[in-house]
Amino acid sequence: MSENQNRRATRAAAEQFIQQFQGQPYPASRKVYIEGELPGVKVGMREIELQPSLIGGTKDNPLFAPNAPVRVYDTSGPYSCPDAQIDIRKGLPALRTDWIKQRGDTELVTDFGSVYSKEQWLDESLQSLRFESLTERRKAKAGVAVTQLAYARRGIITPEMEYVAIRENLSRANMAAATEARTQHPGQSFGANLPKQITAEFVRQEIAAGRAILPANINHPEIEPMIIGRNFLVKVNANIGNSAVSSSIEEEVEKLLWATRWGADTVMDLSTGRYIHQTREWIIRNSPVPIGTVPLYQALEKVGGIAEDLSWELFRDTLIEQAEQGVDYFTIHAGVRLAYVPMTAKRVTGIVSRGGSIMAKWCLAHHKENFLYQHFDAICDIMRAYDISFSLGDGLRPGSIADANDEAQFAELKTLGELTHRAWAKEVQVMVEGPGHVPMQLIRENMQLQLEYCAEAPFYTLGPLTTDIAPGYDHLTSAIGAAQIGWYGCAMLCYVTPKEHLGLPDKNDVKEGMIAYKIAAHAADLAKGHPGAQIRDDALSKARFEFRWQDQFNLSLDPERARSYHDQTLPQESGKVAHFCSMCGPKFCSMKISQDVRDYAASIEVKQLDAAQQQAEMQKKAQQFRQSGAELYHGSDSQLEEPQL
Amino acid sequence: MSENQNRRATRAAAEQFIQQFQGQPYPASRKVYIEGELPGVKVGMREIELQPSLIGGTKDNPLFAPNAPVRVYDTSGPYSCPDAQIDIRKGLPALRTDWIKQRGDTELVTDFGSVYSKEQWLDESLQSLRFESLTERRKAKAGVAVTQLAYARRGIITPEMEYVAIRENLSRANMAAATEARTQHPGQSFGANLPKQITAEFVRQEIAAGRAILPANINHPEIEPMIIGRNFLVKVNANIGNSAVSSSIEEEVEKLLWATRWGADTVMDLSTGRYIHQTREWIIRNSPVPIGTVPLYQALEKVGGIAEDLSWELFRDTLIEQAEQGVDYFTIHAGVRLAYVPMTAKRVTGIVSRGGSIMAKWCLAHHKENFLYQHFDAICDIMRAYDISFSLGDGLRPGSIADANDEAQFAELKTLGELTHRAWAKEVQVMVEGPGHVPMQLIRENMQLQLEYCAEAPFYTLGPLTTDIAPGYDHLTSAIGAAQIGWYGCAMLCYVTPKEHLGLPDKNDVKEGMIAYKIAAHAADLAKGHPGAQIRDDALSKARFEFRWQDQFNLSLDPERARSYHDQTLPQESGKVAHFCSMCGPKFCSMKISQDVRDYAASIEVKQLDAAQQQAEMQKKAQQFRQSGAELYHGSDSQLEEPQL
Repeated sequence: MSENQNRRATRAAAEQFIQQFQGQPYPASRKVYIEGELPGVKVGMREIELQPSLIGGTKDNPLFAPNAPVRVYDTSGPYSCPDAQIDIRKGLPALRTDWIKQRGDTELVTDFGSVYSKEQWLDESLQSLRFESLTERRKAKAGVAVTQLAYARRGIITPEMEYVAIRENLSRANMAAATEARTQHPGQSFGANLPKQITAEFVRQEIAAGRAILPANINHPEIEPMIIGRNFLVKVNANIGNSAVSSSIEEEVEKLLWATRWGADTVMDLSTGRYIHQTREWIIRNSPVPIGTVPLYQALEKVGGIAEDLSWELFRDTLIEQAEQGVDYFTIHAGVRLAYVPMTAKRVTGIVSRGGSIMAKWCLAHHKENFLYQHFDAICDIMRAYDISFSLGDGLRPGSIADANDEAQFAELKTLGELTHRAWAKEVQVMVEGPGHVPMQLIRENMQLQLEYCAEAPFYTLGPLTTDIAPGYDHLTSAIGAAQIGWYGCAMLCYVTPKEHLGLPDKNDVKEGMIAYKIAAHAADLAKGHPGAQIRDDALSKARFEFRWQDQFNLSLDPERARSYHDQTLPQESGKVAHFCSMCGPKFCSMKISQDVRDYAASIEVKQLDAAQQQAEMQKKAQQFRQSGAELYHGSDSQLEEPQL
Repeated sequence: MSENQNRRATRAAAEQFIQQFQGQPYPASRKVYIEGELPGVKVGMREIELQPSLIGGTKDNPLFAPNAPVRVYDTSGPYSCPDAQIDIRKGLPALRTDWIKQRGDTELVTDFGSVYSKEQWLDESLQSLRFESLTERRKAKAGVAVTQLAYARRGIITPEMEYVAIRENLSRANMAAATEARTQHPGQSFGANLPKQITAEFVRQEIAAGRAILPANINHPEIEPMIIGRNFLVKVNANIGNSAVSSSIEEEVEKLLWATRWGADTVMDLSTGRYIHQTREWIIRNSPVPIGTVPLYQALEKVGGIAEDLSWELFRDTLIEQAEQGVDYFTIHAGVRLAYVPMTAKRVTGIVSRGGSIMAKWCLAHHKENFLYQHFDAICDIMRAYDISFSLGDGLRPGSIADANDEAQFAELKTLGELTHRAWAKEVQVMVEGPGHVPMQLIRENMQLQLEYCAEAPFYTLGPLTTDIAPGYDHLTSAIGAAQIGWYGCAMLCYVTPKEHLGLPDKNDVKEGMIAYKIAAHAADLAKGHPGAQIRDDALSKARFEFRWQDQFNLSLDPERARSYHDQTLPQESGKVAHFCSMCGPKFCSMKISQDVRDYAASIEVKQLDAAQQQAEMQKKAQQFRQSGAELYHGSDSQLEEPQL
């Protein structure tokens, strides 16, 4: 099969995949839109419908009380909209274009700013790989910073900021459910600021203070705005991208859609293989979430993998190439300074960051200071012209428990603090990357030092893994650390898949990693006391207690898995209304007995009775309880004895 | 197929399963025995052999340094001993019998102490289910307590205590590895006492103080002694047991062996279905780890599932029946007091403990105080005669985030504290059960209150789950909480499988739950600073850095999975010496680049040079580095370009 035929075939597979998405939305779910005040602000959420609760009555005339639907944050963009006409060859609707135009501070670019981009465009042989539609490219007018930070500091509330405020405001979105729900447990947020209602003004303040970023390249108008900051919901990033030994463009687009279906708030394209430029274009044009990259990877690819041959000029051209495509944040390893490299000499696992090891090699080969550090201000000048956020890379993060919190790691963190301030001086948004492998007792120190050195800029960690002994399960070893550091204030968690340390993740791994990290992030939201976070837990537990099995499944992070696990041992339809499952069977189900107990206990009203009356009342109630025991079953389970399996 | 034929067939399957175990030990592993001073004390551990490290030399004359093998704690008993003659119809060797006899404080029982046991024995129809060998039964001589607690208080160091001291002493077992290893990170143990060398005397003190228990029924002489306590390695319990709608005796024996293969320190048999008595006998006779039960389940089965028909007399008979079989600890829900039951009325998920809901129902139906509470001293009198430990049940634990740390839960905990002292007064060993579902910010309070109310008796929690929203993944939602509470001082963690809330776990679920919990327990050991805990992490990371892939796999918790995940994208044998994997490919592997960097950085010796000399030295080194780059590969990878996949 020719390469072209190959591509067409895999592209057809990707399109079929999208149709499957739209045809198989999450169960009992519909897309709802909450409108803002500013024009064009329409925030999509997923609304999960619930069955009513049986609250009394008789078998022939049961009494029901409705359960308010539950709305949850939704990262899947138009892909979960059954009516949306999606064509991956055209990309997603550019929902931010009007907002960008109206700001009047950008202009269309008529030629490529990057030499490499131009070369790629003129290369006929790449025709079949190219994204098929032409895209507008913009750039800031001369001397202007077009970043959300710049606007925020000037007191401007952009439509993006309002969008985000609505998105984060789980309480308001769930007003009906919240009224029914009990008061959430107060959180322990270690000094964070979590207002009961998140307003657009609050968002602006947070961005202006540098405590949050809203990554949104003017050339990525397709994104649904989102915010990364300690005082907002903890976010999760998924990594995709090919390598020299694996994967194709279409597989990467599929992984993108798959990751966002499972809740990825941003996605990093970490490709290190072939056609990095083309792969990225397809990804960005079809991504409803911000896209991050490590430009150094592509730069290294351009010099044939020889780190010593990297240069500032080549890197600069790569930044512009990616900026024009619409990358929303760059990981820049400007903290790997020459003097720090020898500090890693005695480590067990040296430098585990790809970017970090590349820069370290360059520094040593030239015996010069890291050119990213040297040219940092020039990098800022590029980024402020497109509103690309920094993700200041932790090139010297620890790759083993033994290396955690060592001199090299914190020397770099100090430098990242210095660079944070320099970026802010240029009105560029900044977040700071973090570890890695850290045993639990050392996690808090990481958070505290980062808050101090980086003046509360958002922290973005990879895990951390809390032990090294379980390759194959590092989504789990790291979810333990991620939940904790999220609780302590980390703003975004970069997921880890079961393939970590072993190979490139496939789609299953992406899902496993995503679910593990949505769990960690949500556990952190609960622990911090993010208003409204507990609504979903409460709704699911209520459904569980009432044996509304479908509702329990539908409210969960992975309804299909919950349902299929249940059905493995109790597949009949009657199982879905059964007041037990195969764990304990009908006689031992504590929830079933518990309902009987509750109904009885609630009926005891003894406060107004004297001792003798109480005694008599008790005997009477006890007798009633024994007699009524059999009739306290809810639902149509008269035929439910021990089911035949 | 007749029932008998059915049983023989499934028994043959179980035997085949055992042979598979013995035929397929963990890779690169052998069983080693460390002898104690007291006669018969021989502690088995698993020793993992490692490849040597290439440290220099030339391609024709490479120079190697050996890597000391790593010894790890082993719960699989004789099943991992290739020479052991195992016949599940005969059970395991009774390694403790001489120790028990020599204490001279027990006597053989010639008749059944339990009416039920006698009935079962006389029932011909149960012949085919019965464990096939006759077993000695013992009981304490009149008035004597034969518990490890009683001995410890009298200053006696039993062989069991010495056994345990050797088992826990990872540093001493790994003396060779420990000398090579770097200093472990100091832990934060929140006031625990973790001596560098664990002695038998230390063990005795901990047991005497009630801070640790050594569960070891005199009728379960087959166990390899183990200890549960805050100042020891965090332990993990696995649950097995059939239910009315699932599983057979042989499947349960297989689950036992499977769980101990994956590291279960104790196993609870929570059967609620048919042939509970017979199932338990097969399990105990073949178990190298302590076995726990909830006697209330079987008692309920005996009254046809009608909780109101339970009585103290029936329960007492059940205790004796199980005591004579050799159950090592009983979960007793004596804290579910009548006055507490109404406190659960407003909960979201009521009472989720099976035993708790059963006792609550009984209390309300009779309007009487919990008969387990009323007869607690009599229960102690039985348990002290066999050395059965209490696991004081948390019948009122929270089953949802909303219910965490509520009035009912802590009222019960206070009562468990009172009962702890009452049991100690009778010289009965005690551990205390705990939650459940607890958001992270509320976990620490649980540990602190339990330490206070229960005078540091060991805590034994179920998770806790840190969010309710992920049925299907509750091994993960709870591993997050379990790691934390283990760090804070919890002594044993009861595992949770992916099937939690959905159905009875199968073998795969048992494994997934076990790995998740071994991770949580080990993360806690590292965080507490248990001496020697970091040796395995360091050895694995060192192997990873040196691309000793087989060693990395072999040191991991699940070598087969690590290997197969790696091989999914890089299956050739050359992949096992490759200095990269499919995650990044050969050009981008940070570990490979990192080795180059390290070798160079370590070679810089500039301290004695002046500025000009330094400059010249640097240029020379830089040139050397560039020239030598290609020759710094280790291993036979001259043929490793980009592999053909």
